[in-house]
Amino acid sequence: MSNHLISIDDLGAEGLTELLDLSDYFLEVSGRRIPKVPVLRGKTIAWLFWEDSTRTRLSFETAAKRLSADTLNFNVSSSSVKKGESLRDTVETIGAMGIDGIVVRHASAGVPRQISQWTDAAIVNAGDGWHEHPTQALLDCYTIRQERGSLAGLRIALVGDIKHSRVARSNVKAFAALGAEVTLVAPPTLLPPTLDGWPVKVTQDMDEACAHADVVYLLRMQLERQEESLIPSLREYTSRFGLTSARARALNPRTLVMHPGPMNRGVEIAGDVPDLANAVVTNQVANGVVTRMAVLYQLLGSGAGLVPELEVERV
Amino acid sequence: MSNHLISIDDLGAEGLTELLDLSDYFLEVSGRRIPKVPVLRGKTIAWLFWEDSTRTRLSFETAAKRLSADTLNFNVSSSSVKKGESLRDTVETIGAMGIDGIVVRHASAGVPRQISQWTDAAIVNAGDGWHEHPTQALLDCYTIRQERGSLAGLRIALVGDIKHSRVARSNVKAFAALGAEVTLVAPPTLLPPTLDGWPVKVTQDMDEACAHADVVYLLRMQLERQEESLIPSLREYTSRFGLTSARARALNPRTLVMHPGPMNRGVEIAGDVPDLANAVVTNQVANGVVTRMAVLYQLLGSGAGLVPELEVERV
Amino acid sequence: MSNHLISIDDLGAEGLTELLDLSDYFLEVSGRRIPKVPVLRGKTIAWLFWEDSTRTRLSFETAAKRLSADTLNFNVSSSSVKKGESLRDTVETIGAMGIDGIVVRHASAGVPRQISQWTDAAIVNAGDGWHEHPTQALLDCYTIRQERGSLAGLRIALVGDIKHSRVARSNVKAFAALGAEVTLVAPPTLLPPTLDGWPVKVTQDMDEACAHADVVYLLRMQLERQEESLIPSLREYTSRFGLTSARARALNPRTLVMHPGPMNRGVEIAGDVPDLANAVVTNQVANGVVTRMAVLYQLLGSGAGLVPELEVERV
Repeated sequence: MSNHLISIDDLGAEGLTELLDLSDYFLEVSGRRIPKVPVLRGKTIAWLFWEDSTRTRLSFETAAKRLSADTLNFNVSSSSVKKGESLRDTVETIGAMGIDGIVVRHASAGVPRQISQWTDAAIVNAGDGWHEHPTQALLDCYTIRQERGSLAGLRIALVGDIKHSRVARSNVKAFAALGAEVTLVAPPTLLPPTLDGWPVKVTQDMDEACAHADVVYLLRMQLERQEESLIPSLREYTSRFGLTSARARALNPRTLVMHPGPMNRGVEIAGDVPDLANAVVTNQVANGVVTRMAVLYQLLGSGAGLVPELEVERV
Repeated sequence: MSNHLISIDDLGAEGLTELLDLSDYFLEVSGRRIPKVPVLRGKTIAWLFWEDSTRTRLSFETAAKRLSADTLNFNVSSSSVKKGESLRDTVETIGAMGIDGIVVRHASAGVPRQISQWTDAAIVNAGDGWHEHPTQALLDCYTIRQERGSLAGLRIALVGDIKHSRVARSNVKAFAALGAEVTLVAPPTLLPPTLDGWPVKVTQDMDEACAHADVVYLLRMQLERQEESLIPSLREYTSRFGLTSARARALNPRTLVMHPGPMNRGVEIAGDVPDLANAVVTNQVANGVVTRMAVLYQLLGSGAGLVPELEVERV
Repeated sequence: MSNHLISIDDLGAEGLTELLDLSDYFLEVSGRRIPKVPVLRGKTIAWLFWEDSTRTRLSFETAAKRLSADTLNFNVSSSSVKKGESLRDTVETIGAMGIDGIVVRHASAGVPRQISQWTDAAIVNAGDGWHEHPTQALLDCYTIRQERGSLAGLRIALVGDIKHSRVARSNVKAFAALGAEVTLVAPPTLLPPTLDGWPVKVTQDMDEACAHADVVYLLRMQLERQEESLIPSLREYTSRFGLTSARARALNPRTLVMHPGPMNRGVEIAGDVPDLANAVVTNQVANGVVTRMAVLYQLLGSGAGLVPELEVERV
């Protein structure tokens, strides 16, 4: 693993597994009476979010604080960026202040990679356009592994707006790297122009997909897709691709139901489905903190090896 | 005391007194060279404020930091709430991240109580609509007790816009529970439709009320009440119900003058009155930090008992 | 040095030198594996910024956290200030919470000085109108001293919009106090109405100024100056007063190029100039953290003397 986490491609199966194993350790830390370790004491991590995201920021911030890092919020809307400063100057300025890590979210694909070339700080991609959201994929893999022991051989149905989803892109790569078999379930209008190189099957038959899936992963349906005429109506979308109560009841009881949040209850997922025993949406949120602790530790920790450092230095 | 602080009703006289006694301890802590104790080390507290309030948030945040808790600001305006996520999903998400306490302010009465049913995190009501603002009542009781030893038998005149005031509702309950005799001083348009069950007297005679009061507590006059025709004019309101310089000079020198802030100097309180020797507005602010330390400690501390835990673990 | 840092006048040559010497110590701290000292543990510092400034706030916040202080952001736009609370009441409220230091930025000259009379908290001026920005001057002096050993006898060309610049006012005072010879390079429309008492020479000949300068310090050109007709056009401004690539190449290789940021590349400074070996813009940013650590330590530290306190108490 390099000094950055921009794409699942940076990790591969080995890198992914290493982070998932490390997450097991931080899951244990999170269960302690004082769920905090001093491994990033003195390190400073800044949030550089061009797109609003309280959910993801809060998850990263909780992770950083449990590692005893200091955190800084770079509020783009009130920053020099508004005064016309170039992105490069902004990033070099943050780097010059001695900040060790920058967690970036931007509406344009490729910005985190670009930024990583301008600074010595470790860059973590927290979502760039439709490109990638690697820590989401990591927490999803961790959640599945927690429930099933391994992803190898599992059949995962990824349902919804694949085209505009960075979550889908990161998850397809990560699920496939860990040996799962991914089926995309979406109308043609919500698929990317080409699926060349995507290790997936495609279907439009939600019932068929659900019947064979070990995991049904629902993507958030952006309400504006209706206005863009990519779907005939929300009602029809729900009827064909939503995890309705009827479809959920028909699932094998061991089939996991997942969603990255925030959910549009009543659209891609019926209102009562997240409360079913096999829905692990809340586990995904909890595992977000744990896996982000692993990422931040691996990028910013001393590198002296996990066990001795973590075992000795308890808060 | 339960796991939450939503209403003064949750406390009763015994719970109030317990928190006031605990506050004495944190007053001592606040006077130390390093005014910090590690009793909430590893605990995470989030602010979930739908209404702006720098003053209250800052007071809670200072309290949390003196207890060594980690704090997170959940910025509602940039959150998933704006993307249509339900309140319940938002709260469950925060809870799933392992956050221990949530301090909530919302424009609607009842939201903090509702939230407390959706999460294991301790909920502190920092103001909900016209309903309650229990930590304000706590700091006010503490300030009076500090000056007078006890509230028992004191006559407290509560002046102004009772109808729209959560401060009034919490304070009436708390003052009465601790044995004070409360008189509301307000025009009928600024009283609630009914006072059934309120342990208060009511008058419209400010001079009479001031003559007998041990405490004159002024509520903030919202300037929009004039537009709503609830008062004829600010000038007339001031003349009939304001603590003018003349009225303040006529007070018994031991009568305390209180205000929850922010003050509209020149409206409900004359510009020079807060600087009088018997005005304790600044003490109220200082005691806000101390009493909120007590609340957060009681809800989130180990419960192993105050003295041993606090005495042993100094930062 | 008093309890505040409002103006370079408060310091004089001796105070400046003391802070620069102290900065050497914090430069060493910043290079440690854990760049943190517990000297302000338990101290609370609030940001009170009426003008947006992510850059300056981030620098102060990084400094405060390296000193182990707790930090609070007082968001003016969502505060009681908007509800009509007086500035004095706001400041007294913050002071009453036991906050030890307030870093202030305001669009009006004189506000930090005024605030310092209303509270016991230490006030640091982070920029007030066109008046002063003393920590910018401090970091600039430190950067020059780092490169040249001393400012005594150096010739510094300060170029651009002197009239509207608090950076210029603080830097002229500080550079002169430390023995440098300052030349202002600006069109008459961008000079103050009078330079009585300014220890400077003035020229409009940028090439001549560059030929003799040990330091060329460029001020940010506000794009609105063109609309105000203070300059004929940005293009003409650049041609007469910008540090173009040609002018930069003609400089003595030891001549330092400085800019307070954010830069308008292509206006007051050519796009490639900040990357030259003698441009120290990034060093200025890095030194901002170090010198602000010195300021905060001096104002808020125990005063027990630097060496024993800092040497003994390592994190």
